[in-house]
Amino acid sequence: MISYDDAVKLILSIAGPSQSVQKPLQEALGYALARNIYAALDQPPFHRSPLDGFAFRAADTAGAQPHSPTEFNVIGYIPAGTVFDTPLKQGEAVRIFTGAMLPLGADAVAAQEKVFYHDNSLFLERQYSVGENVARAGEDVLCGSLLLTAGSLLGPAELGLIASQGISDLPVYPRPRVAILTFGSELLEISDSLSVGKIYNSNRYLLEALVSRTGAIPDYRGKISDERDELAQAIVWACQEADFVLTTGGVSVGDHDLTPAAVAASGAEILFHRVAIKPGTPALAARFGNKIIFSLSGNPAAALVTFLQFVLPALQLARGIDWRQQVVKAVITKSFPRKKDQTRFLAANTIFSGGRFVSEPQSIQKSGVISSFRGVNSLIIVPPGLGELAADSMADVQLFPQIFDNLPFTGREQ
Amino acid sequence: MISYDDAVKLILSIAGPSQSVQKPLQEALGYALARNIYAALDQPPFHRSPLDGFAFRAADTAGAQPHSPTEFNVIGYIPAGTVFDTPLKQGEAVRIFTGAMLPLGADAVAAQEKVFYHDNSLFLERQYSVGENVARAGEDVLCGSLLLTAGSLLGPAELGLIASQGISDLPVYPRPRVAILTFGSELLEISDSLSVGKIYNSNRYLLEALVSRTGAIPDYRGKISDERDELAQAIVWACQEADFVLTTGGVSVGDHDLTPAAVAASGAEILFHRVAIKPGTPALAARFGNKIIFSLSGNPAAALVTFLQFVLPALQLARGIDWRQQVVKAVITKSFPRKKDQTRFLAANTIFSGGRFVSEPQSIQKSGVISSFRGVNSLIIVPPGLGELAADSMADVQLFPQIFDNLPFTGREQ
Repeated sequence: MISYDDAVKLILSIAGPSQSVQKPLQEALGYALARNIYAALDQPPFHRSPLDGFAFRAADTAGAQPHSPTEFNVIGYIPAGTVFDTPLKQGEAVRIFTGAMLPLGADAVAAQEKVFYHDNSLFLERQYSVGENVARAGEDVLCGSLLLTAGSLLGPAELGLIASQGISDLPVYPRPRVAILTFGSELLEISDSLSVGKIYNSNRYLLEALVSRTGAIPDYRGKISDERDELAQAIVWACQEADFVLTTGGVSVGDHDLTPAAVAASGAEILFHRVAIKPGTPALAARFGNKIIFSLSGNPAAALVTFLQFVLPALQLARGIDWRQQVVKAVITKSFPRKKDQTRFLAANTIFSGGRFVSEPQSIQKSGVISSFRGVNSLIIVPPGLGELAADSMADVQLFPQIFDNLPFTGREQ
Repeated sequence: MISYDDAVKLILSIAGPSQSVQKPLQEALGYALARNIYAALDQPPFHRSPLDGFAFRAADTAGAQPHSPTEFNVIGYIPAGTVFDTPLKQGEAVRIFTGAMLPLGADAVAAQEKVFYHDNSLFLERQYSVGENVARAGEDVLCGSLLLTAGSLLGPAELGLIASQGISDLPVYPRPRVAILTFGSELLEISDSLSVGKIYNSNRYLLEALVSRTGAIPDYRGKISDERDELAQAIVWACQEADFVLTTGGVSVGDHDLTPAAVAASGAEILFHRVAIKPGTPALAARFGNKIIFSLSGNPAAALVTFLQFVLPALQLARGIDWRQQVVKAVITKSFPRKKDQTRFLAANTIFSGGRFVSEPQSIQKSGVISSFRGVNSLIIVPPGLGELAADSMADVQLFPQIFDNLPFTGREQ
C-alpha cells in the first residue's frame, strides 16, 4: 500500500508531453504551445488612428486657443486600409478614419467631434502633443519580442494575438488518446434491458466525459470478456493504439478481481496497486513502454475521485500543461473522523462567501454513490492523522474548474 | 448613450433558450437539461455487496465471539452479475463478490480478510448488525426521485448518474449557431501577405474562440465588401441561418462606420448603440425577429470586453444556463481614475492569495492592444463616479472561468 503523496509523486515523475505537432490556428483553441513564439511584425504594423478625425503635425498647433484657432488645409481623405502617400507639410491635415495609417509627417490626431470643420478647412482650438490620439506602430507588440512562451495555453486572446501576426499554424502538444475499458460481467450497455443481478455501465459515460473535460480524446473499447488472458490482450491492444489506458472494475483483492493479474500478464510494470486513500483504495497504475495504465475501482464515486487524483494530472502533463492542484483553504461545515494511515476525499460544494471559502461535504460519502457528486465542485481532503477534522475548522479543499461546472463563486444577479 | 447596467438588463430581458432537442447521452456533455429527469430505477437496483466476502443472516451471529465463533455452512458462490436463487436459511452463508446481489434472506456481509474460512465452513468471531457491509437497493438513487433538475449542466458525474438509470438520450437546449462577420477594408486573412496600411483579421479568431468557449458554434462568414447594402444583405442572410450575429468593425461614428446603417437597413430593430463603458463604447445590439445582432468594435480588446459583457450572457441564456456574473471583491494593486458617466473595465490578473483575492491590472489598457489580455483571467470594474478607485482598495472583479484558462488560485505544487 502506497501513500497518497507518494502515489501522486510517482505519477508526476513519469508523465509528460508527447512530441509536438503543428496545428492550424483555427483548431488550436485549448492547446498548450510547445515552443516560444516571437513576433515577426510590429502590431499595429504602422502608426494608426484609433478614431475618426483629422491627422496633422502637432507642432502646428502651438499657441492655438479657442479665440485663436489654428487653421489647416485638409488635403486628403484616408479610410482604413488605404494609403495616403503625400507627406504632410506645415498647415496641412487629412481626414482620417479608425484604423487608417497616418501619413508621413502627421504625429497627432484630433477626434472629429472635438473640432470645427468646414469645406477643406479644419480649425483646432488647442495645442496637441506629439503622439496624441495615435496608436503607435508596435504599441501592442514589438517585432522580435516574445509573443507567447512555451507552455502557454491558447485561449481566445492568445489566438487573436497570434492571428494579428499573420501566423497560421502553431507547434502544440497533441491531445492524448485515452482507451477506456470497463470490466465486469454485471455490466449492461444502456441500450440493453435491465435484468436481475446486472447494472448499467455508467463508468463508460463518466470516464468518457472526464477524459473529454481534460482535453484528451476518449476511446471506449466496448465490452470485454471476464477472462484474464482476454483482458490482458485487450490491455496490450489498447496500449498500442492509445497513449493512456483506463480500466474500471476488478481491482480489489477477491478471486474475481482479474485486472491486476491481467495488467501483469500484459507485460506492464506495476507502479502501485492499492493507495492509502478512500474512496478508491484499490487503484492501480502501471507502465507499458511509454504508456500509462490506470485501473480504477468499478464503484463510480471511487473511480471519479481516483481519476481526479492520478489521471487528471497525468493527462494535463501529457498536454504540456503546467499542472498544479487548485487547492484553497476552506471552512468545512461538518466534522469528519481522521484515520492514521489514510487520506480521505469528501465530495463537497465549495463557495466563496463572506470573504472566505466555505466547503460543505455531501451527506452520503460512499464509493458506490455517484449521486453525491451531482452539482459538486470540489473535494475536501481529510489528511491522515488522529482525532477528527472538526466542523468550522480550515481544511485543504481541491477545486476542479476544468472538470466541474459549478463555480465556487456565489455569482451576482444583475 | 445607454448605461452599462441598462444595456445588460436589456440583453438579459430578451435572451433565452430556444426549443429543446433530444441528445444521445454520449453527446450531452456540457449541455443544460431542458426538463426535470426522474429516476425510473432504484440504484443500485438490488441489495448488493460492496466488497468481496460472505453474505449471511446477521441474526445468526448473535453471541459470536473470538473464542466462540458462529459457524456457517457455505452453500454457494456469487460473482457479480450472477443470481443465486436459493434463499438462505439459518446457519447458511454464501461466498459473494463486489457488486453481486445478496441472496434472499442474507442481510449482512463480512469482508473476506476479516473471517476464517475453511472448505465449506465460515467462522465469524463477532456479531454483525443488519445491513452491515450491504449497499442497499436505492441507496444511491430511489426510483421516482428527482434525478436532475431542469437547467442542470451535464458534467461527468451527471452523465454517469443518468447512465446508471439506463437513460440513453436527454432533452437539452441546443448550442446556438453564431454567425461572425468582420467588417473592414483594412483586414487581410492570415494566409495573405501583409501590405502597407492593412492588418491581419485577428477578430475572426478571437471571436471564433470566444464563441466556442461559451459552448456555441461559430460560423465565420468570410470577407464582406464595405458597401452598406452588401453589409445589410450579409446581416439578413446571417440572421436567417444563425441564432446570433456578431459583427466587428465599423460601429463608431465616422463616415466609414457603415455597420449601424447596414443593421438598420437590414430591417433589424436597434436596441442600443453606444454604451457608457470603456473600452467598447460604440457597441450596438439589435433584434431581428427572435435573433440578436451584436456589433462590436473592430479594436480587439474592445471587442473582447464587450463580448464578455453582452454576448456571453446572451449565449449562456440561449443554452439554458442560469447566467450569473462571477464577481468577487478583490484588492486592486493600482489606482485608476473614475469618470462620472462611464464604467471602465480593466484587463487584470486575479489570484486568491493570503486569504483574499488580489487583482493586478495590466499596465497598458487600450482598445487596440490585445497583448494585454495574454494570460489574463478577469476584468476589474471601475464604476462611474468621482475621484479614483484607489490602490489597495476593494473593487468588484469579474472572473470568466468559462473563457480564460488561468485560474484565480495560486495552486500548490505537489
